[in-house]
Amino acid sequence: MNKQCFTFILAASLTVGAAWAQVEKSAVKDDFKPSELNQPGQEYPQVNSQGYVRFRIKAPQADSVRVSLGLGGRGGTKLTKDPEGFFAGTTEGPMDEGFHYYHLNVDGGTFNDPGTLNYYGSIRWESGIEIPAHDQDFYQLKSVPHGHVQQILFPSKSTGTSRRAFVYTPAGYEKGNKRYPVLYLQHGWGEDETAWSNQGRANLIMDNLIADGKIEPFIIVMTYGMTNEVKMGKIREFKIEPFQTVLVDELIPYVDATFKTLASRDKRAMAGLSMGGMETRTITLNKPDVFGYYALLSGGVYSLEDLKDKTKPKLVFLSAGSKEKPDGVRNAATALKTAGYNSVSYVSEGTAHEFLTWRRSLYQMAPLLFK
Amino acid sequence: MNKQCFTFILAASLTVGAAWAQVEKSAVKDDFKPSELNQPGQEYPQVNSQGYVRFRIKAPQADSVRVSLGLGGRGGTKLTKDPEGFFAGTTEGPMDEGFHYYHLNVDGGTFNDPGTLNYYGSIRWESGIEIPAHDQDFYQLKSVPHGHVQQILFPSKSTGTSRRAFVYTPAGYEKGNKRYPVLYLQHGWGEDETAWSNQGRANLIMDNLIADGKIEPFIIVMTYGMTNEVKMGKIREFKIEPFQTVLVDELIPYVDATFKTLASRDKRAMAGLSMGGMETRTITLNKPDVFGYYALLSGGVYSLEDLKDKTKPKLVFLSAGSKEKPDGVRNAATALKTAGYNSVSYVSEGTAHEFLTWRRSLYQMAPLLFK
Repeated sequence: MNKQCFTFILAASLTVGAAWAQVEKSAVKDDFKPSELNQPGQEYPQVNSQGYVRFRIKAPQADSVRVSLGLGGRGGTKLTKDPEGFFAGTTEGPMDEGFHYYHLNVDGGTFNDPGTLNYYGSIRWESGIEIPAHDQDFYQLKSVPHGHVQQILFPSKSTGTSRRAFVYTPAGYEKGNKRYPVLYLQHGWGEDETAWSNQGRANLIMDNLIADGKIEPFIIVMTYGMTNEVKMGKIREFKIEPFQTVLVDELIPYVDATFKTLASRDKRAMAGLSMGGMETRTITLNKPDVFGYYALLSGGVYSLEDLKDKTKPKLVFLSAGSKEKPDGVRNAATALKTAGYNSVSYVSEGTAHEFLTWRRSLYQMAPLLFK
Repeated sequence: MNKQCFTFILAASLTVGAAWAQVEKSAVKDDFKPSELNQPGQEYPQVNSQGYVRFRIKAPQADSVRVSLGLGGRGGTKLTKDPEGFFAGTTEGPMDEGFHYYHLNVDGGTFNDPGTLNYYGSIRWESGIEIPAHDQDFYQLKSVPHGHVQQILFPSKSTGTSRRAFVYTPAGYEKGNKRYPVLYLQHGWGEDETAWSNQGRANLIMDNLIADGKIEPFIIVMTYGMTNEVKMGKIREFKIEPFQTVLVDELIPYVDATFKTLASRDKRAMAGLSMGGMETRTITLNKPDVFGYYALLSGGVYSLEDLKDKTKPKLVFLSAGSKEKPDGVRNAATALKTAGYNSVSYVSEGTAHEFLTWRRSLYQMAPLLFK
C-alpha cells in the first residue's frame, strides 16, 4: 500500500470548511432561518443567505459554551450568555455550502446541539448543519418516484455476526423481472453505513437523476467498512483483509442471491469517499475481476503502475473538492487517459473534505457508470 | 371520541419505570457492564445485573449534572464530580427491565448523554438505555434469516409531501410470488415512524417468531401518525382526519400497489401503542371494512357499544403493563369475549408505559393475527 492513498484522508483535519473574509462583519445579513436539519419545532441553529450560522443554546448555569464549527484553528465559535440564560453567537464568517458536522463544548464536556439532528461521524453521532448550496436542487426531496432504502442484515461467517447494510433500490424495482447493475459505495473514517443516505442523500440524488432521464437505474449497496477500528493517527495500521472478505465473499454473494442484480464485473462498481476511497483502491486492485468501475472521492488516485498487467477497468473516476489541492486528482486522471484508460476527474468548486464534495461527485459519476 | 382512550397516554408521565426498594443500598452488586445501546467504544452508561444504572459524564467546569432517569418525582439521579472532572453516579434503585428514554441536565440545559445512542421520543432525539430483561431472547439479533426494513417515501396529495414509512418484509420475501398480510403499526406520542424498529425491535421480534415457526410471515408498515402536532397537555385537541386520510387513502393504496400484499380486510391489521392505540381505535371504528384485526397496546379499550352494528373484527387484542393498572384491559377483553367477540388481553409483568411492554405485546399478538 503506498502513501498516496492517505493524502486526502489526512487532509480532513486540515481543511476547515469555512469561506471566510469575503464579507465585512457589518455586512452580515439579518435573514437567518432555522437550519433544514433542525429537530421538529427547533428554531436554532439558524443559517443566513450568506452562510453564517447562528447558535442559541440553553444552559443558564454554565460558564462557557463553544461550538466546534467556525474557525477551526482557533477553537470554533465562542458563545456569550444572554440575560435569559441562553448562550448565543454567530460564526465569524460564512461557512462553505453543504453539510457540516459539529458539536458543543459545555463547561469542558462534549455534547450535541439539542436543536439539530445527529449524524454518525468521528466514531460518534454528531450534530449536523446544512448551508443551502446554490446547486442544491440535485439532492432535494422532490415530487418524483422514489426508490427505497432497505436495511438488510446479512450473515458473515468470517466475523461471526449478522452485519448491517443499506440497499438503495430504484423506483419501480418491485415490478417485473428487470435486473440492475450494482454500485458498492463506502463511507469515510469515523462514519458508517448510514452516512451515504443521511449526510450524502444518495437516494435522493439517484431518484432525481433517474426522474430526469440522466441515468439508467442501478442499485447502491452501503455497508460498514470496518474503518474505525483504528484511531485517526494510526490509519496506516489499518488492514484491508477483514473488510475485503466481508465485502467480496459475504455481502456481494448475499446481494446477488437476494436482489435482482446483474451479477458480473461489467455491471459492478466500487466507490468510496476519503478512507472509503483507500478501501476501494486496495480492493479493486486486489480483485480486478470483481469490479469493472472504480471511483475514489477525495480518496487518492490510481497510478499507471497500479493498473499495469491487470484486467482493465471500464472507468476510473477521481474527484476532490477545490479546497483539497485537487491537482493530484486532475493529473492522475490525465496520465491514465493519455495511457488509454477511460479516466475522468471532477473537482467540486468551493468545497473542502466534506459531504457536498461527495454528493456532487456521486451526481457526476453516476451517469458514467455501467456504459 | 370518549375519554377512555386517553387513560394510558396520560399515564405515561405518571409511571416511573423504576423497580425500587427491593435492594438495600449496601447490596448493589459490582458487576456493571456498558449498556448494549452505547455508542462504539463508550464505557458509560453501565448497567448491573440488578438493573442499577451508573453514569459518567465529562464536564470538568460544570457545577451540576443530573440524569432524568431514576426517581422521576424527585428529579432523577444527581451526579457528583470526581477529581478528574467527570460527573458520576448510580440510580438509587434498580430500573425496570427493558428500554428507557432519558436525558441530562447540565447546568440548567438539556443535553443527551454522549455515551449512548439516541431514540426519537418526546418530540426529540433522546438518550436510550437498555436493562437486559429476563426474557430478552425473543427480541435479540440472532443467527436466523433476517427480513429487511425498507424506508419508503410515498406520495401524499392531502399533505402535499412525500412522506416516510418503514416497511418490514420477512426473510425470503424477494423470492417467488407469495403474497403477505399486512400489519399497520403505530408509535406513541412524541415518537415517530422510527420507533418500532429502533426502540421496539419489531423486525428482530418478527425474524425470531418466523424462524421458530410460531407465525406465518407478514409485512409490517410503520409511518408517522402526525401525533406530535399537539402538545402533551392538549392531546384532546388532536384531530384524526388528516392522518386517517394519509393512512387509508394514500399509504395503504401505495403499499398494496408496491408490495406483494394480500389486499383485503381479512388480511389487514392495525395496532398502535399509547396514542397510536387511540389512533388505531378511532380509525378501525371509522373504517371497519378496511381492517380486520385491531390491537391497542397501552392504548385504551373497545366497548361493546363501540363495536355495535359494525362489521365484526376478527380479533380485538388489548394489552398493558402490570404497572399501568391493567384491569381496564382485562375487563374490557372479558366483556367482549362474553359477548361473542374474539378478544384477547395480555398484561406484561413488571413493566410500565414503556417499550418492553410493547415488544412483549407484539410478540404475544403476532401469532393471533390473520388466522
